[in-house]
Amino acid sequence: MQSDKILLDHGSGGKLAHQLMIDLLLPLFDNPLLAPLHDGAVFDVAAGRLAFSTDSFVVDPIFFPGGDIGDLAVNGTVNDLAMCGAVPRYLSLGLILEEGLPLADLKRILVSIRAALDKAGVQLITGDTKVVPRGAADKIFINTAGIGVVPAGVVIGGDGARPGDCILLSGTMADHGIAVLTQREGLRFESDVVSDTAPLGAMVQAILAAAPGVRVLRDPTRGGVGTVLNEIALQSKVGMVIDEELLPVQPAVAGICDLLGFDPLYLANEGKLLCCAPPDQADAALAAMRRDPHGRDAVRIGQVTAEHPGRAVMRTRIGGQRIVDMLSGEQLPRIC
Amino acid sequence: MQSDKILLDHGSGGKLAHQLMIDLLLPLFDNPLLAPLHDGAVFDVAAGRLAFSTDSFVVDPIFFPGGDIGDLAVNGTVNDLAMCGAVPRYLSLGLILEEGLPLADLKRILVSIRAALDKAGVQLITGDTKVVPRGAADKIFINTAGIGVVPAGVVIGGDGARPGDCILLSGTMADHGIAVLTQREGLRFESDVVSDTAPLGAMVQAILAAAPGVRVLRDPTRGGVGTVLNEIALQSKVGMVIDEELLPVQPAVAGICDLLGFDPLYLANEGKLLCCAPPDQADAALAAMRRDPHGRDAVRIGQVTAEHPGRAVMRTRIGGQRIVDMLSGEQLPRIC
Repeated sequence: MQSDKILLDHGSGGKLAHQLMIDLLLPLFDNPLLAPLHDGAVFDVAAGRLAFSTDSFVVDPIFFPGGDIGDLAVNGTVNDLAMCGAVPRYLSLGLILEEGLPLADLKRILVSIRAALDKAGVQLITGDTKVVPRGAADKIFINTAGIGVVPAGVVIGGDGARPGDCILLSGTMADHGIAVLTQREGLRFESDVVSDTAPLGAMVQAILAAAPGVRVLRDPTRGGVGTVLNEIALQSKVGMVIDEELLPVQPAVAGICDLLGFDPLYLANEGKLLCCAPPDQADAALAAMRRDPHGRDAVRIGQVTAEHPGRAVMRTRIGGQRIVDMLSGEQLPRIC
Repeated sequence: MQSDKILLDHGSGGKLAHQLMIDLLLPLFDNPLLAPLHDGAVFDVAAGRLAFSTDSFVVDPIFFPGGDIGDLAVNGTVNDLAMCGAVPRYLSLGLILEEGLPLADLKRILVSIRAALDKAGVQLITGDTKVVPRGAADKIFINTAGIGVVPAGVVIGGDGARPGDCILLSGTMADHGIAVLTQREGLRFESDVVSDTAPLGAMVQAILAAAPGVRVLRDPTRGGVGTVLNEIALQSKVGMVIDEELLPVQPAVAGICDLLGFDPLYLANEGKLLCCAPPDQADAALAAMRRDPHGRDAVRIGQVTAEHPGRAVMRTRIGGQRIVDMLSGEQLPRIC
């Protein structure tokens, strides 16, 4: 029986599941660690430190300008590892498929995953596929977990910001959030905005080489830059001050946000990082970011301060100050 | 705003998500590696080999006799690591929650996860929570990924079976499949059958200590013992012969299977393992299995043969032979 859609039997662990693996997954992801098709993959490690992270992806729609749920799922976990200062190495892939998902959509997503793996320099070495009946999930959910190697001497954490540190952002805000939004049912509209989904492992290593004093790295995904600033302020027990006029936002993104009442400070990015650099290393860090293809628009957006610990504050264009609170309601569900 | 149900905002990365973490997740799972609440966890490793595995869990219903989706998700990945010969160490947890899930249900599942982690001797060190709108998922899906340490000298794989090896099974078949089945909407009925969900890491290490010649370990989950026998036959290029009269099935399970037309050979187990042991070490392996609380009913069920490579065959009670094929249709969707 041939079908152009996912059937419940594709998740059975039996013949069709085996065929899905042999026909679709193995040809795309074949590598010596995955090939044994055992319950898990076994790999060699040197003594040292590893980073471990996971993310599930439920983005709606699954295809959007600049990416899809596949490369998003790779880059999301790769970037979480990178934000630990790690060199991302290995990924797992957990697929939850809705019965009836077109096989062509699945294939397109898997091809996109493969391309993203190659760009990020990571290997997919273990995975799992489940199928649920029609209506029990929405098309496809993806979980990735990843392992990276933390170079000796690198210690990154949310608690490492110090008063005086410069706050650097690797590019424009809210591109991913707006790109997905433009494709939502009931709201679809034309725009040139594309998702910024991208792997940031290479940029992180370049920053750490140029500015070894960097102790805080975060990727402002769900909740955006505003939420990340709050998290760092809380964990480092410092204040964060940003300048509204320094915040990079593409004009098209700013226009859509104005129109719909969204604040780009809280919208998702999927290929950006925020870091805190000691003042004497900030220029070097910024230069390293700008040399990376995903960091060309990197800028300094503010400074860490000893005042108002645990809080983020924005100096507005008109000279006032306002508190940048943690996001209290969901602006855009299923953004990643 | 207080709610006794999961809201979309719980997945926002903002205030409610933070609160869910602080109020519910951290108190249950607090440990030095998880506590930093960074994008990933960082841990030390010695030089050697690690195993890495992942599984998603979509079982329906989420609570069933003998377990729930929470301990199932822990044991599932712990056992995949154990089947690589590894000592399971670290787990990630990815939650996909449906808006409206009662917080009490989530808490019950998280408590169960915590208990299962303790039983298995593993730590939860990183995680992620997503919330999707009502109707976009069914209550809760869980992904776990895990990392284990493979002791020096241990090499386990599906390709390690040799003609003459004894095929050992650690206990009765199909308990999990039938336990879940009895709770299905539209089919609910009384029985004493409970899921066998259990961690098998300790049993594996005991087997390998007693019988270092064991080269194949598999846990017969989805697809059951029948499917695993086929996988080993294919990967090891050997034949597998089992004796119907040696196959352990609880009378209650056998009765329900007879009634409903299910074959216990293909139903899921979540706390059993199958191994191939060299003939001179089979008794030692079997004794090690029986000393473990989850292996008291361990038995020899057959033998690896050079005949009919790639195929599994059953000697029936009445003296005939029949091919044990790979499962071709799904008997029970959403069993794990």
